[in-house]
Amino acid sequence: MSRIKLTLGRHIVAEMYGCDDNYLSNPQLMEELLLEAARRADLTIVASKTHNFIPGVTSLVIVGESHLAIHTWPEYGYAAVDIFVCGSKDPWRAYNVIYEKLKPERVKVTELKRGVITLPRASLTLNDEVTVRKTVLSAEPPR
Amino acid sequence: MSRIKLTLGRHIVAEMYGCDDNYLSNPQLMEELLLEAARRADLTIVASKTHNFIPGVTSLVIVGESHLAIHTWPEYGYAAVDIFVCGSKDPWRAYNVIYEKLKPERVKVTELKRGVITLPRASLTLNDEVTVRKTVLSAEPPR
Repeated sequence: MSRIKLTLGRHIVAEMYGCDDNYLSNPQLMEELLLEAARRADLTIVASKTHNFIPGVTSLVIVGESHLAIHTWPEYGYAAVDIFVCGSKDPWRAYNVIYEKLKPERVKVTELKRGVITLPRASLTLNDEVTVRKTVLSAEPPR
Repeated sequence: MSRIKLTLGRHIVAEMYGCDDNYLSNPQLMEELLLEAARRADLTIVASKTHNFIPGVTSLVIVGESHLAIHTWPEYGYAAVDIFVCGSKDPWRAYNVIYEKLKPERVKVTELKRGVITLPRASLTLNDEVTVRKTVLSAEPPR
């Protein structure tokens, strides 16, 4: 039986150097930026969590399609950006929003394939849902 | 003036296939597993957020040293694991805890360097704090 390969997720790993100072130390701005990036990529926002370090910010957003994360080191003008999106949504739409706001002078960016699954071709119709991760919510997350 | 290169963070990206079924659909177990992994790597736990999809679980833990994330696809026995740790802590200690519990049949794992900063050597004493990210907490995260 012939087989087919599916990739469950795409993960953009971006190193942004020389970013806009106004953002890197501001937890509210960073969280709003991640949420806006998620919205512009048509992702389903499930929850967000942001923490203000001294110095620096961590912001994470759970989306139905996986997650977005930023960690910043304002003392080095650096932001570590992760955009992990499964299904058919385009993570680069979220990336562009972040890039436009942080205005990095230099970027190193890679897209990783996450979850490469090999299935019998005959089962493919059963697995159409791979491209649209179900976002049915549980009653309440454990915390 | 001579210059020195610092790496702010180490990021383990792990693809775990053929994982233990008991974990992949259980949000409580997955969150406890991430928290235990963080503790075993001596990371400073700041916040966690877990979400139960049908099927699958997303669990994220913010640590003072960055974050841990798992997304699971129980229908494929697959878990996407990210362990991003800055400073001197060893992300492989957290990885090993997750590996031992999920018992994957097959793993693809990579360690990425995050935040490679070049500084004048003379400034190094000022930047000793790079290796111990400050975890002074803000009064209250924005949400």
